[in-house]
Amino acid sequence: MSFSVILPDGSKRDFDQAITISDLAHGISTSLGKAALAGKVDGQLQPVDYQLDRDANVAIITDKDEEGLNVLRDTVAFVFEAVAKKAYPELRFGEHAAGEDGFFVDTDKENQIKVNELPELENAVKKAVKAGEKIESVVMPKAELEEIFKDDPFKLELLSQETSDEVKAYKLGDFVDFGFAALLPNTGKIKQFKLLSVAGAYWKGKSSNPMLQRISGTAFFKKADLDADIKRREDIKERDHRTIGRDLDLFFVDPKVGAGLPYWMPKGATIRRVVERYIIDKEVADGYQHVYTPVLMNVDAYKTSGHWAHYRDDMFPPMDMGDGEMLELRPMNCPSHIQIYKHHIRSYRELPIRIAELGMMHRYEKSGALSGLQRVREMTLNDGHTFVALEQVQEEFTKILRLIMEVYKDFDITDYYFRLSYRDPKNTEKYFANDEMWERSQSMLKKAMDDMGLEYVEAEGEAAFYGPKLDIQTKTALGADETMSTIQLDFMLPERFNLSYVGQDGEEHRPVMIHRGIVGTMERFIAYLIEIYKGAFPTWLAPVQVEVIPVNLDAHSEYAKKVRDELNKRGFRAEADLRNEKLGYKIRESQTQKIPYTLVLGDEEMSSNSVNVRRYGTEEEIVKSFDEFIAEIDQDVKSYSRKNR
Amino acid sequence: MSFSVILPDGSKRDFDQAITISDLAHGISTSLGKAALAGKVDGQLQPVDYQLDRDANVAIITDKDEEGLNVLRDTVAFVFEAVAKKAYPELRFGEHAAGEDGFFVDTDKENQIKVNELPELENAVKKAVKAGEKIESVVMPKAELEEIFKDDPFKLELLSQETSDEVKAYKLGDFVDFGFAALLPNTGKIKQFKLLSVAGAYWKGKSSNPMLQRISGTAFFKKADLDADIKRREDIKERDHRTIGRDLDLFFVDPKVGAGLPYWMPKGATIRRVVERYIIDKEVADGYQHVYTPVLMNVDAYKTSGHWAHYRDDMFPPMDMGDGEMLELRPMNCPSHIQIYKHHIRSYRELPIRIAELGMMHRYEKSGALSGLQRVREMTLNDGHTFVALEQVQEEFTKILRLIMEVYKDFDITDYYFRLSYRDPKNTEKYFANDEMWERSQSMLKKAMDDMGLEYVEAEGEAAFYGPKLDIQTKTALGADETMSTIQLDFMLPERFNLSYVGQDGEEHRPVMIHRGIVGTMERFIAYLIEIYKGAFPTWLAPVQVEVIPVNLDAHSEYAKKVRDELNKRGFRAEADLRNEKLGYKIRESQTQKIPYTLVLGDEEMSSNSVNVRRYGTEEEIVKSFDEFIAEIDQDVKSYSRKNR
Repeated sequence: MSFSVILPDGSKRDFDQAITISDLAHGISTSLGKAALAGKVDGQLQPVDYQLDRDANVAIITDKDEEGLNVLRDTVAFVFEAVAKKAYPELRFGEHAAGEDGFFVDTDKENQIKVNELPELENAVKKAVKAGEKIESVVMPKAELEEIFKDDPFKLELLSQETSDEVKAYKLGDFVDFGFAALLPNTGKIKQFKLLSVAGAYWKGKSSNPMLQRISGTAFFKKADLDADIKRREDIKERDHRTIGRDLDLFFVDPKVGAGLPYWMPKGATIRRVVERYIIDKEVADGYQHVYTPVLMNVDAYKTSGHWAHYRDDMFPPMDMGDGEMLELRPMNCPSHIQIYKHHIRSYRELPIRIAELGMMHRYEKSGALSGLQRVREMTLNDGHTFVALEQVQEEFTKILRLIMEVYKDFDITDYYFRLSYRDPKNTEKYFANDEMWERSQSMLKKAMDDMGLEYVEAEGEAAFYGPKLDIQTKTALGADETMSTIQLDFMLPERFNLSYVGQDGEEHRPVMIHRGIVGTMERFIAYLIEIYKGAFPTWLAPVQVEVIPVNLDAHSEYAKKVRDELNKRGFRAEADLRNEKLGYKIRESQTQKIPYTLVLGDEEMSSNSVNVRRYGTEEEIVKSFDEFIAEIDQDVKSYSRKNR
Repeated sequence: MSFSVILPDGSKRDFDQAITISDLAHGISTSLGKAALAGKVDGQLQPVDYQLDRDANVAIITDKDEEGLNVLRDTVAFVFEAVAKKAYPELRFGEHAAGEDGFFVDTDKENQIKVNELPELENAVKKAVKAGEKIESVVMPKAELEEIFKDDPFKLELLSQETSDEVKAYKLGDFVDFGFAALLPNTGKIKQFKLLSVAGAYWKGKSSNPMLQRISGTAFFKKADLDADIKRREDIKERDHRTIGRDLDLFFVDPKVGAGLPYWMPKGATIRRVVERYIIDKEVADGYQHVYTPVLMNVDAYKTSGHWAHYRDDMFPPMDMGDGEMLELRPMNCPSHIQIYKHHIRSYRELPIRIAELGMMHRYEKSGALSGLQRVREMTLNDGHTFVALEQVQEEFTKILRLIMEVYKDFDITDYYFRLSYRDPKNTEKYFANDEMWERSQSMLKKAMDDMGLEYVEAEGEAAFYGPKLDIQTKTALGADETMSTIQLDFMLPERFNLSYVGQDGEEHRPVMIHRGIVGTMERFIAYLIEIYKGAFPTWLAPVQVEVIPVNLDAHSEYAKKVRDELNKRGFRAEADLRNEKLGYKIRESQTQKIPYTLVLGDEEMSSNSVNVRRYGTEEEIVKSFDEFIAEIDQDVKSYSRKNR
């Protein structure tokens, strides 16, 4: 026997008998031997007791490597399985996995482990860690594993997907499981970990499959890292728009009356109404003509547009209206706005024609994918289409982008970047065929970005079939990348719907259509706002802007009502809390509800026509005249001030 | 032979041989003999040569009687048929009728007679009138008529509906037709008449039947009456919201993309937006909580509500979403608002709870019944539901009614009356069973009306199954009676959806639900407004409020733009007409578009920062400073002024 091992630095070591990864690491240095958690052999993770016996590229994995965390987390998952099986002998397991976000283990039925039982299981894992039990890696005949798991239908299904007759498995005492790349050799090597949650999860993530139970956790090498991660998770939970939406009574979704169909409660509806009016006014001032078009359209229009052929799976089922009419709930508004354009003969003098709408659309999302306001089946898009001559593309693009950035400023959206997508220059035949349009428009978009002095990512081959585009990617409060705004050129739909305008030459010309969205759908945008603001909406958006609280119900209620009514009459949203509750309770509740201004009114205020103002998030109380307060809140609302955070 | 005739005054005349109605009239007085157009024998209209030969009650019909006009109009219809048949020998006829609105004759195919051929046919009728030809009334065996009309399938179908073997028919020369009650005995007796229009009409009014052609006309005894009627018809045409909608580019409907699904063009959409914001703000100020709820709902909710059982024909087809979910486009918003109510446990302290929405709904109307914005399949209702304790009904009813009347005032709706509908006291078992609720609430409604000092019609037996109601009936500009607003109590839905609130006693109680609409659907309301305003919207509603026209493009365009921009910045809707057209043409077009203010700007205005103002509908031009004009239009908008008419 003779073989060589090549290490990541390119150095080569020759051996004439099999050695383990651990031995290899120790041979390199004592410290590396101690630090070795696993090895990567020809790209495959293997445990430290894996035998090297042929030529291979080998890397030693330590806690400095990304894979080290996965090894640690997989090990915790495995040990968790072993102790859980001991505690609940009837338990069977489904899939398990480890990755960036921690690890999970699926058990075979719902509600087998309660969330309040997690600490006990965590203790059992800790006991195993303390005991320093050996974790044995074995390669077993598939048939032997099938015998072991003969009563576990999920494991049998997983085994059936193994392509080799020999399967790598791990043992901890009597407990056996497979599907792990590399585990630590001893439970004693486990460092910081935490079991996090219990939830339902479909077998293999498909909603047609049975619902299983998923236990999630995470693990780190250092306590500081674990603590930081737990804090991050709490922050996410605290910002989750579904939680805040429930706590502040903004909206709800009830799958019994309609999956993915949100009901906007009065407070959520107020926020939405303010946003809608804001964006319409902004667009109208910028030259858009707002319209209302039907949410239903003859299916023929979607055949013309190509949606019926390519997008049907995302559309709702058509409705047969009799008289040969088949209607479809629209999945997008472009064909509707094309109807508006086509309703008149258009002249070059009118261009650009900017049609906008808060357009309600319906898209079929799988029920498993639906989530709060973020993933819904009925949505209202802040949609707009501008129709331009090719030579106007740059100017119009710039105008749209300026509008988007003004809106971002008003909503305090600061964490975003630009992504400019071109067609793939090596595969131009994959795109709508009009080289001149592509070349000219792509360079106009690029020039527009450069002229505005903006930085952007260029993505060749990421354009749509029908034209180049700019996406504006924001980071949600939960860290996800999301396309908030988009400006997409479209050469195809004007062709398919035979759009034209009469040029200065008296001839018919084909316009370019620009699809653009500024804040996206009301649903997703408000979910986003809830999360960036943590529910503490700035005054101009807050559903209740002022809470008026009398110190004493008998003595000060009339003055409180007067102040409230006066505020409402001036167009502010004020409420008076006249319940028979303690003053402190009312003030606390006003804070819990994240109301920007709390006015506490007692004798002093009543006698001097003043108000005691407490701004959300501060402890300070300031007494000022009612007129001064009016001036303050008026300025606050008008400036889209973002103080309430 | 011996018989008696009893006249309308009760007097009795005995005869011993048959006499005609004409003879009878002459016998009474020479003037009555001359004036007799027909007779009414035991309630049946008969021609003047009809033979009286048995006991009967007889009235002589003259041009003083309502039936006289019908006799005249039927006669014109008959003579028209005869002359048309001579002019177009291939012509066959369908139904004909005479009534309040004139007469019509249906021919058997579309496009047989062009509208520009009507004057010639009118002349032919006039010639027959001049010739004074005899119109003979005959009673013929049905079989003989069937032989005459053997090639006329429509006439054969009409004949098959005659129950007697003898059919009354009329002859003019060779021409024969039936289905007329009484005709004048001679074409010479025809007075003023006019052929009005040619249109399509389904056989028997059913859209599944063939399309025929309908020629309409009218006739009067006096020229002044005819002239007044023609003027009225022109007025109706001028007010028709479909015509105005097209002329002012407010909306369109294209059955090819969706029957009954209107597209609101930018100007129509502006009017709608102003109305929507107005009504929402008004309602919010009145204590309503506005929400947004989905246009789709699980069909189960409509089974609970009873709509599925009783209203299904008016609903759109359900959509199968998979996962066992059947969704339905909602035909009304009540079940949606019930979801909002049910989302929390409600306390008596919260009542009345007022939920409102601009709720989009879909109702299946037969395609033949669809018309402009007035009869559509997709509509957005100014809907609201308030939930009250039974003892709060009167107060809440009064509050709603006050709100309705404030809104009417702002829109200058003055032609309306109240109709209060109760259950039928003799058939109480036909209604939702809760005697106490009915009795108390009916008397509360009545008391509320009386306390407000309002006059109203009481309609016993006109209540809905589920509760009493008040309808406010307006007259459309075209004279039709229309329910604009409604306040309906509902005892049933709270029961069906098991709604409750916790009373002061800590027990669960059932609330009463009040359905209320103020301006109805946006579609129908704006159709109504277009007609009452004849398209000349008051400034606060006008899609373009100010048209700015420079006297000279080179010299005054910059000033015109400055004035326009300044107006827009202040929230007014201003446009500048900078086209290369003559000044007079632009001013005329601004009037045609019924724009409230036209500003003409020349040297004088530019040098003094003033504007030359022309108010719509006046000839007067007034020069005033720009600031003065701003103050004027501001006041105009704020006061919902109705000057622009």
